[in-house]
Amino acid sequence: MLSVDEALRAVLGWARPLPPRRVSLRDALGCVSARDVAADRDAPPFDKSVVDGYALRSADGTGFGPLQVAMEIMAGQIPARRLEPGEAALIMTGAPLPEGADAVVMIERARRVGNSVWIEPQPLTAGMNRMERGREYRAGDIVCRAGERLVPAHLGVLASVGCAFPEVIPPPRLAVVPTGDELVEPDQAPGAGQIRNSNGVMLAALADERGLHATLAPIARDERTSLEEALQCAIKNHDVVVITGGVSMGALDLVPAALAARGVERIFHKVRVKPGKPLWFGVGSPQASALESFGKVDPIRPLIFGLPGNPVSGLVNWLLFVAPAVEVLAGRATAEGVLARTPITLKLTDPFAHRGDRPTYHPATRVGVDAARPLTWSGSADLWTVARADGFLAFPAGDRVHQPGQVVPFVAMR
Amino acid sequence: MLSVDEALRAVLGWARPLPPRRVSLRDALGCVSARDVAADRDAPPFDKSVVDGYALRSADGTGFGPLQVAMEIMAGQIPARRLEPGEAALIMTGAPLPEGADAVVMIERARRVGNSVWIEPQPLTAGMNRMERGREYRAGDIVCRAGERLVPAHLGVLASVGCAFPEVIPPPRLAVVPTGDELVEPDQAPGAGQIRNSNGVMLAALADERGLHATLAPIARDERTSLEEALQCAIKNHDVVVITGGVSMGALDLVPAALAARGVERIFHKVRVKPGKPLWFGVGSPQASALESFGKVDPIRPLIFGLPGNPVSGLVNWLLFVAPAVEVLAGRATAEGVLARTPITLKLTDPFAHRGDRPTYHPATRVGVDAARPLTWSGSADLWTVARADGFLAFPAGDRVHQPGQVVPFVAMR
Repeated sequence: MLSVDEALRAVLGWARPLPPRRVSLRDALGCVSARDVAADRDAPPFDKSVVDGYALRSADGTGFGPLQVAMEIMAGQIPARRLEPGEAALIMTGAPLPEGADAVVMIERARRVGNSVWIEPQPLTAGMNRMERGREYRAGDIVCRAGERLVPAHLGVLASVGCAFPEVIPPPRLAVVPTGDELVEPDQAPGAGQIRNSNGVMLAALADERGLHATLAPIARDERTSLEEALQCAIKNHDVVVITGGVSMGALDLVPAALAARGVERIFHKVRVKPGKPLWFGVGSPQASALESFGKVDPIRPLIFGLPGNPVSGLVNWLLFVAPAVEVLAGRATAEGVLARTPITLKLTDPFAHRGDRPTYHPATRVGVDAARPLTWSGSADLWTVARADGFLAFPAGDRVHQPGQVVPFVAMR
Repeated sequence: MLSVDEALRAVLGWARPLPPRRVSLRDALGCVSARDVAADRDAPPFDKSVVDGYALRSADGTGFGPLQVAMEIMAGQIPARRLEPGEAALIMTGAPLPEGADAVVMIERARRVGNSVWIEPQPLTAGMNRMERGREYRAGDIVCRAGERLVPAHLGVLASVGCAFPEVIPPPRLAVVPTGDELVEPDQAPGAGQIRNSNGVMLAALADERGLHATLAPIARDERTSLEEALQCAIKNHDVVVITGGVSMGALDLVPAALAARGVERIFHKVRVKPGKPLWFGVGSPQASALESFGKVDPIRPLIFGLPGNPVSGLVNWLLFVAPAVEVLAGRATAEGVLARTPITLKLTDPFAHRGDRPTYHPATRVGVDAARPLTWSGSADLWTVARADGFLAFPAGDRVHQPGQVVPFVAMR
């Protein structure tokens, strides 16, 4: 059985950044830019006023009586003519300074009567309240680099250089396929021996939190043909397929067989971890959308995760394996980068008695900046307790009482 | 002119949690639950097996030869009959234990030949690999409290109790209305004196980041009638309207007048802050959707923010005023809670010379856990620098050189 580290390495060995795609600016939020973007013009594109006021020649000073108001320049307009000595122009924030003008006095510090304007006595300096052309960036400057993760301010900058459809690594398309005859949908009343499908919406929401496009499939039944069809449909249209249930050792755990029948290559089954041991991982055939890369050494293959049906097992598997894979597919991290990360560690607030030969991920709440309190928890089917947790403390295998103050790795849920 | 604190108080004085609404489970992600939700049944709903294996009577021990396999119980099925002494039942993970059985042995630790199964010698204890009915929660238990912010695990729990449409405080409906004759859309080539609309997508993305439903309106022109219509349309259908441009002192700053004409009550104009001084804030008439609360003392009124057109001014206004208001509307915080928050403070890595009579928000990157480096920045029109920042250092008013190591409040961008 693989250790958590070995399993993560095996998963990430199959994770590649998705091929770049052009998306709308708003859809690009949170995505990684696939290329450098250069400015198509200077910003600002002209010397502009940063206040509402009067553009003037600083050499005119303020001690010589009023200036003549030669023109009014609104944002979006261009000055009608050059400003001559002894003249001023009413100018709005963002409007271009007229030739000849080198400073702007704020409107609050001037008094206008008819066509004359008195400027309050004040030192006038060239450049006052003026932003020179190209001060933010110049045509040809790279305003966004390949690999940068796009935040709202980037989108504003891309908009300003006319990059309305940036090329980004798209978020992976992820499908959640709940399976099992014991499941009914959340709005239905369970019969004897049945429970409601809680995994589906939880896993889809975990994907939603990370900005993915997640499809939540209807419950697939424990019947070979319909299961195969449901899985095939999910694999065909997605980069990541997360199946829940049907991967233990039970007689009706049909998922591995159904996947094999649909050309999914098994990479591993089972991980030395508690909860979440039955995790199944494989890769689909290269996708139609990857046909362009046909002939290349390394076509992209969909990642198929078979998660156990216990909700917390699935959640732990998600955090340990699916989430890092998604980061790599979305170009937000490299496999090497993920593997080189130093795990967060927190101090125990309370003693914790660990038993068992697998490392255990136990729900806990953070206390202050560097400590965590393990919650009272009835095991992998107890999702209620986990909803109140901030993440999981990772206790190593072996029977041992961990003492308060001891440092334990922590996997944060958000 | 109001201080930042006074302006925030004035804004939050008008912010109320929105009326609760039922949404689908997936749409409830990140929302605050509006009421306690009780379990409709025990979880698990029966004593269940947590492994694939053989259910048996622990009193039978392992030293007396094979047990008879009396039945097979799949998940979703109910046991055909009671388990008698000397019998075992093949049972799948999640399936109900038959009456009489009190323990389950993992399938890996049993050997089956025909209808007989030999259990490996091991201590058998009552309750082994069994999760008793009601262990996670019991019918009537509150599984989610009013005021809790819903994370994926909550959604799983709500699904399991049949709460498919939880009642939540919905995210505010927010409209972004860019205004100004100098603007063209990002996919257009600016003419002389024009620039592209970078505020629109940036502000919409800031809303998207917080899980709001943001409408990005087309650019409204500096013409009274069309501006009034654009604003009226935004106000009618949204809880928060964020307008950019048209709020300085310029001759074409028509926004305040257009808002007044549409019944928006001005609360304040201008804040002692740099950048972002021209901020305008008002409240619309009580909305149609709030007619239910007609007659109540405190009807909900849409919040109208007029942000200056400089992108960084708008961003700073967003962080200081719009974001906290949105938190209160979404029920994620109370006005009192927001006002009582201790600001984050970070140590300067480099000296910083501040000039001016307004507090200045200056873009900076975080360094380590407790420090920040101010970026070289050309002022409120320089969004490019801000895209590389983690937030803004808030330097107090007054001319002063701040030395490295000095502690300065910090407003994080994410």
